[in-house]
Amino acid sequence: MFKLHHSRLEKIGLPPGTAIHIGEKIAEKARLTVIDYDQDNYEVFFPENVAECKMFADKKSVSWINVDGLHQVEIVEELGSCFRLHALTVEDILNTGQRAKVDVFDDYVYLVLKMPEYDVDLNEVHLEQVSFILSENTIISFQEKKGDTFEAVRNRINNGKGKIRKLGSDYLLYSLLDSVVDNYFVLLEKIGDEIELVEEELIANPTPNTLRRIHFLKREMILLRKSVWPLREVINSLQRDDIPFIGDNITFYLKDLYDHTIQVIDTVETFRDIISGILDIYLSSISNRMNEVMKVLTIFAAIFIPLTFIAGIYGMNFNTEKSPFNMPELSWYFGYPFALFLMVSVAGGMLYYFSKKKWL
Amino acid sequence: MFKLHHSRLEKIGLPPGTAIHIGEKIAEKARLTVIDYDQDNYEVFFPENVAECKMFADKKSVSWINVDGLHQVEIVEELGSCFRLHALTVEDILNTGQRAKVDVFDDYVYLVLKMPEYDVDLNEVHLEQVSFILSENTIISFQEKKGDTFEAVRNRINNGKGKIRKLGSDYLLYSLLDSVVDNYFVLLEKIGDEIELVEEELIANPTPNTLRRIHFLKREMILLRKSVWPLREVINSLQRDDIPFIGDNITFYLKDLYDHTIQVIDTVETFRDIISGILDIYLSSISNRMNEVMKVLTIFAAIFIPLTFIAGIYGMNFNTEKSPFNMPELSWYFGYPFALFLMVSVAGGMLYYFSKKKWL
Amino acid sequence: MFKLHHSRLEKIGLPPGTAIHIGEKIAEKARLTVIDYDQDNYEVFFPENVAECKMFADKKSVSWINVDGLHQVEIVEELGSCFRLHALTVEDILNTGQRAKVDVFDDYVYLVLKMPEYDVDLNEVHLEQVSFILSENTIISFQEKKGDTFEAVRNRINNGKGKIRKLGSDYLLYSLLDSVVDNYFVLLEKIGDEIELVEEELIANPTPNTLRRIHFLKREMILLRKSVWPLREVINSLQRDDIPFIGDNITFYLKDLYDHTIQVIDTVETFRDIISGILDIYLSSISNRMNEVMKVLTIFAAIFIPLTFIAGIYGMNFNTEKSPFNMPELSWYFGYPFALFLMVSVAGGMLYYFSKKKWL
Amino acid sequence: MFKLHHSRLEKIGLPPGTAIHIGEKIAEKARLTVIDYDQDNYEVFFPENVAECKMFADKKSVSWINVDGLHQVEIVEELGSCFRLHALTVEDILNTGQRAKVDVFDDYVYLVLKMPEYDVDLNEVHLEQVSFILSENTIISFQEKKGDTFEAVRNRINNGKGKIRKLGSDYLLYSLLDSVVDNYFVLLEKIGDEIELVEEELIANPTPNTLRRIHFLKREMILLRKSVWPLREVINSLQRDDIPFIGDNITFYLKDLYDHTIQVIDTVETFRDIISGILDIYLSSISNRMNEVMKVLTIFAAIFIPLTFIAGIYGMNFNTEKSPFNMPELSWYFGYPFALFLMVSVAGGMLYYFSKKKWL
Amino acid sequence: MFKLHHSRLEKIGLPPGTAIHIGEKIAEKARLTVIDYDQDNYEVFFPENVAECKMFADKKSVSWINVDGLHQVEIVEELGSCFRLHALTVEDILNTGQRAKVDVFDDYVYLVLKMPEYDVDLNEVHLEQVSFILSENTIISFQEKKGDTFEAVRNRINNGKGKIRKLGSDYLLYSLLDSVVDNYFVLLEKIGDEIELVEEELIANPTPNTLRRIHFLKREMILLRKSVWPLREVINSLQRDDIPFIGDNITFYLKDLYDHTIQVIDTVETFRDIISGILDIYLSSISNRMNEVMKVLTIFAAIFIPLTFIAGIYGMNFNTEKSPFNMPELSWYFGYPFALFLMVSVAGGMLYYFSKKKWL
Repeated sequence: MFKLHHSRLEKIGLPPGTAIHIGEKIAEKARLTVIDYDQDNYEVFFPENVAECKMFADKKSVSWINVDGLHQVEIVEELGSCFRLHALTVEDILNTGQRAKVDVFDDYVYLVLKMPEYDVDLNEVHLEQVSFILSENTIISFQEKKGDTFEAVRNRINNGKGKIRKLGSDYLLYSLLDSVVDNYFVLLEKIGDEIELVEEELIANPTPNTLRRIHFLKREMILLRKSVWPLREVINSLQRDDIPFIGDNITFYLKDLYDHTIQVIDTVETFRDIISGILDIYLSSISNRMNEVMKVLTIFAAIFIPLTFIAGIYGMNFNTEKSPFNMPELSWYFGYPFALFLMVSVAGGMLYYFSKKKWL
Repeated sequence: MFKLHHSRLEKIGLPPGTAIHIGEKIAEKARLTVIDYDQDNYEVFFPENVAECKMFADKKSVSWINVDGLHQVEIVEELGSCFRLHALTVEDILNTGQRAKVDVFDDYVYLVLKMPEYDVDLNEVHLEQVSFILSENTIISFQEKKGDTFEAVRNRINNGKGKIRKLGSDYLLYSLLDSVVDNYFVLLEKIGDEIELVEEELIANPTPNTLRRIHFLKREMILLRKSVWPLREVINSLQRDDIPFIGDNITFYLKDLYDHTIQVIDTVETFRDIISGILDIYLSSISNRMNEVMKVLTIFAAIFIPLTFIAGIYGMNFNTEKSPFNMPELSWYFGYPFALFLMVSVAGGMLYYFSKKKWL
Repeated sequence: MFKLHHSRLEKIGLPPGTAIHIGEKIAEKARLTVIDYDQDNYEVFFPENVAECKMFADKKSVSWINVDGLHQVEIVEELGSCFRLHALTVEDILNTGQRAKVDVFDDYVYLVLKMPEYDVDLNEVHLEQVSFILSENTIISFQEKKGDTFEAVRNRINNGKGKIRKLGSDYLLYSLLDSVVDNYFVLLEKIGDEIELVEEELIANPTPNTLRRIHFLKREMILLRKSVWPLREVINSLQRDDIPFIGDNITFYLKDLYDHTIQVIDTVETFRDIISGILDIYLSSISNRMNEVMKVLTIFAAIFIPLTFIAGIYGMNFNTEKSPFNMPELSWYFGYPFALFLMVSVAGGMLYYFSKKKWL
Repeated sequence: MFKLHHSRLEKIGLPPGTAIHIGEKIAEKARLTVIDYDQDNYEVFFPENVAECKMFADKKSVSWINVDGLHQVEIVEELGSCFRLHALTVEDILNTGQRAKVDVFDDYVYLVLKMPEYDVDLNEVHLEQVSFILSENTIISFQEKKGDTFEAVRNRINNGKGKIRKLGSDYLLYSLLDSVVDNYFVLLEKIGDEIELVEEELIANPTPNTLRRIHFLKREMILLRKSVWPLREVINSLQRDDIPFIGDNITFYLKDLYDHTIQVIDTVETFRDIISGILDIYLSSISNRMNEVMKVLTIFAAIFIPLTFIAGIYGMNFNTEKSPFNMPELSWYFGYPFALFLMVSVAGGMLYYFSKKKWL
Repeated sequence: MFKLHHSRLEKIGLPPGTAIHIGEKIAEKARLTVIDYDQDNYEVFFPENVAECKMFADKKSVSWINVDGLHQVEIVEELGSCFRLHALTVEDILNTGQRAKVDVFDDYVYLVLKMPEYDVDLNEVHLEQVSFILSENTIISFQEKKGDTFEAVRNRINNGKGKIRKLGSDYLLYSLLDSVVDNYFVLLEKIGDEIELVEEELIANPTPNTLRRIHFLKREMILLRKSVWPLREVINSLQRDDIPFIGDNITFYLKDLYDHTIQVIDTVETFRDIISGILDIYLSSISNRMNEVMKVLTIFAAIFIPLTFIAGIYGMNFNTEKSPFNMPELSWYFGYPFALFLMVSVAGGMLYYFSKKKWL
C-alpha cells in the first residue's frame, strides 16, 4: 500500500530554502555516476565526491550526473553550490513530497516528477521522486534509491543505438522522461492484469479478500492519478512553452511523449471507472449470494414450522378418556397415517406455492 | 469483453521510433490493396510486395493503398521508407494502443483512430486501430485485420456514385472517416437494443445474469467513451485547424461529420446514465424481492411459533393426579376443542394485526 | 418511455447527402400548408404539390410553408431543389436522429431541434424533430407529424395580435421557437406534478411500482437533458453570432428566449437532483419497512423460542418412578403453575430487556 | 417544502410581452409606498394610485417606489407605461418563475432575483421574487407580498445613519441587494442549526422521521442552490460590466457584496456535501442497528434450537419396555440431570464459540 | 467537530461597514505586539494602547504589529483609523466568517485567510481567521486568539537567520503565509495518520465508532476544502497580479508557496477520495460480517429444524394399541436407534449439500 505521506514535521518553522531531507531514510550509501558522451566518445565515472563532478560542468560533450539516494543531504548541497542551484531548488530536490513541476531559472531548468515502481515482493507500488537539472550540456538527475529504470537509456548511450549520441542534453532529458512514462505503462499493465484477475475472482468466488483487493486497487488509482496529472502539465509545458536549453528539433519527440502521457491518464481514468464498476458488482454479488442463502432458510423454515406444529398438536396430553372431544384422532385406526398424510399435503402445498412464486 | 490492453512490455527500453508490433497477433498474411481512380478511370491492384506501390506515389490520379494486418512489420516499414514516413509515425502505426490523434508533417498528415467492430459470434465489441496517411493524391490506410467497413466506399468509387470520383484524396479520407463514425452508430444501436432487452428482463425476471450483462454494458460504455472522445478532437481539428492536403470544399462535410461525432458522444453519455439508472433499479428490485420472501418467513414464523408453543404446553407431562393445579385443562370435557380454539384465535388475531399493519 | 433510437442501419454505406427518411413511419399523408401575410393581408393555402409553393419564394410578403410528415421523402426533396437546399440539409431534415444545431448557408439558415410532446394516452413523452429553413421572406418548417404546437402562432398571425404581422420572417422564427420552448415548460410542469405525486406516494405507501415510476422519471430527465442542452447552444448562437436574415430588432426577443431556455435547463437539472434524492429516500424507506418487519420477527422468535424450550423440557418422558432426580417438578403440587410462572417471568424479563434497548 | 413551480399553462400561446401574473395569488390588496429623500429631506407617501407616482419620476431627489403584491396586474402595467418599461420587462416582473438576471435598457436597468424567506410557522423556506428598476434617481421595487426584509434599509434612510442619504439610487440598490444577501445568511444559519440538530438526532436515536428531515434539507439545498448561483452572476455583472446608472464610487461596495454571495454559495455547497454525508451515516446507522437486532436473534435461535431438539428427543414416546435400545436414558437414575447437563454444555459451548468469534 | 458557522444575526440590518465582532467570544484580553527590525536592529514592544503603535507607521525599518484577539472591537477600530483602513476592511477583519481574499486599496493591501489549528485535547480542528494589512514598511496581523503559529517567524527575525532581516515587509508577509500553509501540512499529516488508523481499525475490527470517525474525517475534509481553495486563489493572485508593495524579488518565493498550496489541495482531494473509499469498504465489511452471522443461523436452523420435526413426530401420542398403523416404530426393537440414525442421516445429508454449495 502506498504510504500516504512522509512527515514534514521537522521542517516546520525553518526558513524557506533550508536543505532537509524529507522521505524514506535508507541505509545504503548514496552513489554518484557520471556518463559523459558525444558522437564519438563515451565514458563512465563513479566519482567519490562531488568535487570530481565539477570538471564536467564546462565540457562540450554531454554529461549526465546521476545521484542515487537523497538522504545524504551534503551531496545534494555540494552539487547545488557547484552548479549554482537556487536554495529553493535544493530544498525541493530533497523534499520528496513534491508535486511534479517545471521551474525555469536563468542558468538551468528544474524538473521534478514521480516515477512509479512496482515492488514485486510486496506486490505494491512505490512512487519515487525524480528530479532533473537541465543546462546547456549537462543533466543532473536525482533518484531516491538505486533503480533500473534508466538502465535502458544507459545502454543506448553505450551502444550508440538510436539518435541519442548525436543529439544534446535535451534529447537525453526526453529519453529519461520517456523511460519514466514507459514505467507508468508497465505499471498500468500490471494493474490491468490485476483488475482482470479480480474480475474473474468476482465471477467465480467473491470473498472478503476480493473486497480488500478492490480497495487497494482503488487507492492505487487515486494516488497514481495524483501523480500523473501534474506530470501531464509538466510535459505539456516542456512541449508548448519556450523552455530554455530545449531545442526545436526535439519538440516533436516531446509531443509524442505528451500523447503517451495522455494515454496514461486515459487508462488511469478508465481503470478508475472499471474499478468502481467492479465494486458495485462485488456488492451486488455478495447481496445476491446472501439472498440465495436466505431463501433456503426461508423455504426450510416455512415448510417445517407448520409440520412441527402438527406434530406438536398430536403430542399434547389431553385425556382422551375423559371426553370424546379430546383428540379422537389419536385412537383412530388410520390416525397416524392421517397425520403423516396431513403433513405431506401441507409440505406439498407449500412447495407448489413457492415454485409458482418462482422462489425455488 | 474488451481486452483492457495489449502488452507493451517487449517495447520498454527501446529507443523511440523502433518499429515493433504491439497488438493481437493473427495468423493470416497481411494483404495490400491499391485502388487508383480519377473521374474517368478506376483500377484495382493487389500488389505482392511494397515496391509495386511506389509507382502510385507520383501519379495525378487518387491512389488509395490499404494494408490489412500489422503483424508483418516489414511491410509497414517498407511503406514507411517508400513514402518517407517519420520513424515515430511508423512506430505509432504498429503500436495498437494509440489514442486517436492527428500529426501534421511536412509531407503528409498522420491520423490514427479506433474503429469499433461488433463480433456477432462472441456478442462482443472489438476496437480496431485504423491509421491513415494523407498526402497530395494518396491515402494509405492501415487496418489490424480484414474487415468490411470500407466495402461501401470501395463500391461507391467503383460505381462512380456520389461525388467521390470527382474529388480528391481529402474527400476519400472524409468518406473513410464517415464509415468509421457510421460504425459507431451501428454499434450504439446494438447496444441500445441490448439496453432495452436488459430493461425488459429487469422488469420481468431479474437474475444474477442480468447483473453480469449490466456490468458488461457498463464496461463497454467506459471503453467506447475512451475511444470516442479523442475521435471528436481529431475530427474537430480536421475541421477547424488549417490542415494541409485538406481543401476548403470539404470543410462543410467535415463539419457534418463532426456533428455526427457529437451525436455519438451524446448517445454514449446518455447510455451511461441510463445504464447506471438500470443498475440502481436492479439492486432495488433484488432488494424488493428479498423483502417479499422475508415477509413470508416472518408471517409464517410469527404465526406458528406461538401455536407450537401452545401445543408444547399441553404436551408437558405434569402429573395431573398429584395436584388439581397440574394442567386441569387436559381433563376438561372440551379441553382439546378449547386448545384448538385458542390456537385459531391467536393465529386469527395475528393475521388481523398484520393486515392492519399492511404487511400482508 | 422514450425510444432510445431509430434504426439508421439502412443508411449505412450510402454516400453522404443521400435523402433517406430515418424515423417513425406514420400512415397519414404528409400535408403542406402555406401561410402568406404582411401587415395588411393574410392568406392560407393547402397546396396539393410542391410546385405550387414556388411562387411564394420571391414574394415580398412573409411566407411560412409548413410540412407535416417526413416519410414522403419526395416532398422534402422537391422543396429542397425548389429552394436550392444543400444535399446535406435535406439529409438532416429527413434523419430524425439529429442533435439541435444551426447551419448557416449562403442562401438560407438551417435550424434543427427537438420538440417534446406529451402523449396523454400513454402517459409518455415523445421528442419530435422540427427543422426550420429561414431565408429573406420565407420560413419552411418540417414536423414529423401533425401537431398543435404552432396553432397559437397561426392564430396570432390570423388575428393580427401582437407585433407578428408587422415584423419579418425572423420574428416568425422567434415566435415558433418560443412555442417550442413553451412546450418544454408545459412538459416540465407535468413532470413536476408527477414528481410531487411520487413524493407523496413515497411517504404514504411506497410500492415496487413507485420504483418503476422513479426509474421512468429519471430516464425522461436524462433524455430531456440530452435534447435541451443543444437547444441552448442553438438559441445562444442565434442571439450572439451574426446570423444572416436575423435583424437586430429581434435580438432582444432572442435574449429573452435564451433566458427561458436557461430556466428550462435549471429546472431539468433541479428535477434530476430531486429525483435522485427521491430514489435514495425510496431505498431507505424500503429498508426501514423491512427493518420493522424483521424486528417483529426477532421479538416474537426471541420470546417464544425459550418458552417453547421450557415446554419441551417438561414434555420429556423421563421415568419419574425410577429416580427422584427424574423431573420431580412434574409431581409437585404447584408444578404446573410454577412452570407457567417461569414462562411468564422469562417472557417478561425479555420484554423488559428489549424495551430498555429501545427495540420495541 | 418549496413548491416546485407555478403553473404557466394559462400563458402558453400568448404573444411575448403579454402581462399575466404567474405565481401565488394572495388575498391582500397590493400596496404602493414611495420614499423620497436627499441629504436633507425625507418623505414617505402611500399613493392610492399609480398616477401619483409619476411626479417623482423627474425629481432630483432619490425616489424609491415599492410595490407589495403582483396579483393586481393593472398596477404593474400602469407603472410600466408611466416609466416607459419594455413589454418584456413587465411580463418578467409578473412571471414569478424568473431566473435572476440583469437586463440593460436605454432608460433603465432591470434586475430580478429570488429572496428566501423563512416561514417560522410552517418551518419552511419560501423563495420570493423581487424585481428592481433602476434609473437615474429612481428605484422601483416589486415584491410578491409584504415583508420586513427592507425595513432596516427604510430605517437607515429615515435616521440618516450611514452614507445612504448622501449617495444616489445606485447605493440604495446596493443596500437593498445587501439585505437580500443578508437574508440568505440568516436562512443558512437556520439550516446550519437544523443540520446540527439532525446530526445529534442521528447519533442519539435515528428514526424514520430523521430520514424525512434529511430529505427536506437536501431538497431545500437543491432549490437554494438553483436560486443563488444566478444571483452570483447578477452581482458579478453589476460589479464588472459597465452598467448604466451605477457610479464608480459604489463598485467597491458591490465587490464586497459579491464576496458575500460567494460565501453564501460556498456555504450552500458545503451544506450539500455535509447533508449527503449525513444521509450515508443515517443509512449505515440504520443498518448497524438492524445488525445488532439480527445478532440477538441469531444467538437466541442458535442456542435454543439445539436445546429444544434435545428436549424433543426425550419427549419421544418409544416404548422402553419393548427393547433395551429404546431410550434407556429415560430410566437412568441420573437421566434427567444428565439431559439438563447436556443442554447446559451445548449452550455453554456455543456461547464460548460465539464469544471467540467476537459475535457477543 | 468544526462549528458550521458563527451567528451573524446581530449584524443583519446594520449599514455596511459597521464594526461588529462575529465569532467566538473569548475571555482573555486582546494583546498587541510590535516587532520592529531592519538588517541591524531588532526590537520588541508590547504597547498598552493603540496610540503607541502610531509611531511605527512612518519608520524606515520594517514593523510588524500583531493583534491577538478580535473581541475587543475598539482596538481594531483604533488601528483602523490610525492606519486609515476602509470601513469595510475593519468590518471584514472583525467578521470571522470571511472567505479568503485579497483587497487592494490605495494605501494598503488587505488579505484574509483561514488558518487551521489542531486542538490536541479535543482531537478537533479549528479554523482561525487571520487578517493581514500590508503597506510600505508595515504589516499588521490580526489573529482570533494567541497561538504559536508565527513563533518560528519571530525567532527567525530575532536570530537574523535566513534572508528575513535583509528584505522588506513583503518577504515578512510571505514568511507568515508560509507558516500558515505549513500548518495545513501539519494538519494533513495528522489527518493522514488518522486515516491510516481508521483503515487498520477497519480491517481489524470495524465498530459503529469507526463509522463516526469516518464521518468526522469526511466533514473535516469538506470544511478544510472550503478554506483551502480560496487560499489558493489568494496566493495565485499575489503571485500573478501586480499587487502593490510586493517586490519582484519575492515573486519566486510566492510561486514556491503557490506550489505548496497546490500540494495541500491535491492532498485534501486525495484524502477525500480515500475517505469515501473507506466508507464503501466499511459498509461492505459490515455487510460481510452480517452475512457470516446470518449464514451460521441459516445452517443451524436448517439442520435442527427437520431434526426437531422428527423428534416431534415420535413425540405424538397416537394410540398404538388401537391400530397397527399407529406409529409402529415406537414398538420396534431398534426403534430409537433407527430414529437417531434417521436424524444423523438427515443432518449429514444437509451438511454435505451445504458444503457442496460452498456455504460452509
